[in-house]
Amino acid sequence: MDRAAVLETIRGRVVPSEAEREALATAVEELTARAEAAIETLPVEADTVLVGSTARGTWLAGDRDIDLFVRFPPSLPRENLERYGLDVGYAVLPDGHEEYAEHPYVKGSIDGFDVDCVPCYAVEDATQIRSAVDRTPFHSAYLEGAIEPLADDVRIAKAFLRGIGAYGSNLRTEGFSGFLTELLVLEYGGFLELLEAAADWSTPVEIDPEDHGRRTFDDPLVVVDPTDPERNVAAVCSATNVARLQHYARAFLSSPSTESFETTDPEPLSRADVRSQIDGRGTTPLAVRFSTPDLVEDQLYPQLAKSLDSIVDSLVRGGFEPIRADRFAEPDGSAALFVECAVAELPAIERHTGPPVDVRVHAEGFYDAYESTDVVGPFIDGDRYVVERSREHRTPEEWLEASLFDVSLGPHVETALRTDHDLLVGPAVTELADAFGAELARYFDPRP
Amino acid sequence: MDRAAVLETIRGRVVPSEAEREALATAVEELTARAEAAIETLPVEADTVLVGSTARGTWLAGDRDIDLFVRFPPSLPRENLERYGLDVGYAVLPDGHEEYAEHPYVKGSIDGFDVDCVPCYAVEDATQIRSAVDRTPFHSAYLEGAIEPLADDVRIAKAFLRGIGAYGSNLRTEGFSGFLTELLVLEYGGFLELLEAAADWSTPVEIDPEDHGRRTFDDPLVVVDPTDPERNVAAVCSATNVARLQHYARAFLSSPSTESFETTDPEPLSRADVRSQIDGRGTTPLAVRFSTPDLVEDQLYPQLAKSLDSIVDSLVRGGFEPIRADRFAEPDGSAALFVECAVAELPAIERHTGPPVDVRVHAEGFYDAYESTDVVGPFIDGDRYVVERSREHRTPEEWLEASLFDVSLGPHVETALRTDHDLLVGPAVTELADAFGAELARYFDPRP
Repeated sequence: MDRAAVLETIRGRVVPSEAEREALATAVEELTARAEAAIETLPVEADTVLVGSTARGTWLAGDRDIDLFVRFPPSLPRENLERYGLDVGYAVLPDGHEEYAEHPYVKGSIDGFDVDCVPCYAVEDATQIRSAVDRTPFHSAYLEGAIEPLADDVRIAKAFLRGIGAYGSNLRTEGFSGFLTELLVLEYGGFLELLEAAADWSTPVEIDPEDHGRRTFDDPLVVVDPTDPERNVAAVCSATNVARLQHYARAFLSSPSTESFETTDPEPLSRADVRSQIDGRGTTPLAVRFSTPDLVEDQLYPQLAKSLDSIVDSLVRGGFEPIRADRFAEPDGSAALFVECAVAELPAIERHTGPPVDVRVHAEGFYDAYESTDVVGPFIDGDRYVVERSREHRTPEEWLEASLFDVSLGPHVETALRTDHDLLVGPAVTELADAFGAELARYFDPRP
Repeated sequence: MDRAAVLETIRGRVVPSEAEREALATAVEELTARAEAAIETLPVEADTVLVGSTARGTWLAGDRDIDLFVRFPPSLPRENLERYGLDVGYAVLPDGHEEYAEHPYVKGSIDGFDVDCVPCYAVEDATQIRSAVDRTPFHSAYLEGAIEPLADDVRIAKAFLRGIGAYGSNLRTEGFSGFLTELLVLEYGGFLELLEAAADWSTPVEIDPEDHGRRTFDDPLVVVDPTDPERNVAAVCSATNVARLQHYARAFLSSPSTESFETTDPEPLSRADVRSQIDGRGTTPLAVRFSTPDLVEDQLYPQLAKSLDSIVDSLVRGGFEPIRADRFAEPDGSAALFVECAVAELPAIERHTGPPVDVRVHAEGFYDAYESTDVVGPFIDGDRYVVERSREHRTPEEWLEASLFDVSLGPHVETALRTDHDLLVGPAVTELADAFGAELARYFDPRP
């Protein structure tokens, strides 16, 4: 297929039908009416605003998310905002339930659409916000009027990013948010234009649509928020996801295919498959397995990442040379921090380098400390004392057992590990296939 | 024993008896007479000069070395100097034989003394020398008159350095030369004064007896040659030997003992002893064994050191983490380059990090090169492509077999290895005990 044919196919998949548009319009109308009626009963002024992709006409066909914000005056105390927000929320979504982001809000459904009814402050401008949700209406207002001619390109871009696994600014994916995608399509003037640009990016890339940025950012991709010069809209986007977009942009431009738009779930590996993988690789795999902490993904995944990094760093310090690592979690199930080491066993001794002999006080202290102990040495190598002392932990397993709670774990991960955990080593890691066969399939056959 | 008693004991051992002094004087007289008679017959002016410790009265009791230099005019062509030098040499030492340093010279014996009869140029001053031997008479002349009152302290200092294994400026020991020892004793005013100073040295130490140094040196100990401001007399002295003097100086000052003056040869290890050492250490030892190249020590040991360093560096690059290494050589026998590795085996795969994805030309080249090959990946980690490709050499043995002739070996070592060599691994290294039991004893129980 040529480029135009591929894009036409994708357009057919991602642009909502007239029926879908109408159903959405009807639902929005009903929600707004309910919200306005509820506001009437409050002892305070407020209004509603539809935000997000459904507001801007850039949602992907089949997406069923409606975000309705209720704006209160900035003078309203926070407790009142929260109480009135929930009042309106339950009036709009009588069967809804409370969730919590920066404020509590009500989540529910109407006519098959998932609805978030979120209270926020109607601040003067986006630099005055009290919490992150206050910014959202400014983003919608900024794009309104500008993004409509590019709405289909935005949809195609979102579908592309979703297909390559880089869509979503949640802290599990660390990818491109919807707003970021819209800004990029707007900046370059279309989907293909974005791919052409991304294929050639030299990071760090800096984009400042309003040309008002006044600080520097330490991120590979910087898109200065057009409503707040101090903020990088792409702050969450990881270097890996920036590179991923570059890779798949080049791949698509040189060989267009609908494949890039399709998320493929790999065939889960069985225990035997995992066994054959680790035997073939000849590595020493380890996994710390525990009950997944009861947290939303945006809290869980950063804690898993921090815990995994700390364990990997610890194994590096221990000399076990981790090759690669990953974290897996089932909600309400088990989670695993998985590391493959290159070194299975170290000697019974380890070299310990002391101070330079010419730094007399330290040198004498070191020599005296080791002279009568059961070490090899102290001897002199170059200008320093050296001993070879016995190594306490010769395998990654012994090392990790001894150091697990000395490393910097996420707090809820630490609690979960202290409650209970298994340390799986070598062939025992095949047990992970029961819960994480698909994740392990992706681990052993990773794509860009 | 207190300090004074120890020094008195040592003095008794190192100061030559009256009989020894007389025997030496008689021998020197006879040698000089023979040399002068031989010079008479030459068509050129020349004179003789006694150099070295016997000339300066600082030799250790029992040392039997006499160095007689024959000085020729600088205008004499080198071929003639060599021919006349040998003529005089054979006249002085009719049973002698030719050896070669920078010039050929004659070595022989008289009345139980070992004599070197060495031709040199009588240059104006030491900065004008044509070869290193021309400098020696200037060193003797510089010390003459100054060193006599300290002769016994020099002897004690030499005996101390010999006892701790740091005496000798040959390229096997890389220690303190006799001349350097004399300059240090002279600088500090005695043996104990040298120890007090050395115990407190902060390296680099710079001593410039004539206060005429005009360049900087990159050595831990710098003693500017009093006859040549461009030369560091201690250039050969290794950092290890400087630190060793510091260590034993402190040990002697805090607890004086004749032990420091006594070289102790350790009990050689048997094959079983070596086996028990490596089993206890849990390391992976390797040795490259070959016929010792037929070279003088000053050529052999630098080549062994260079070869060993290159092999160790190669094993570091291979990921096998050498812990310690040593080189052993029997003249006219076998030599061995011995390395103990921490890592016995690495995985079947190795991580290979490619270019940053945003460096388009390189990134595309890398991706295209690996895309259809049998590797894991390319995947993206951070801003770069990564593949896990199969590792060619999983053990230090396989690695070394493949890389031995790619590393920078000493030329004669390379020739010897190409002629024939064994690669001993693990328990097989116990065979080294047959030739190097004492060296291995020192290796496994090193002293400062």
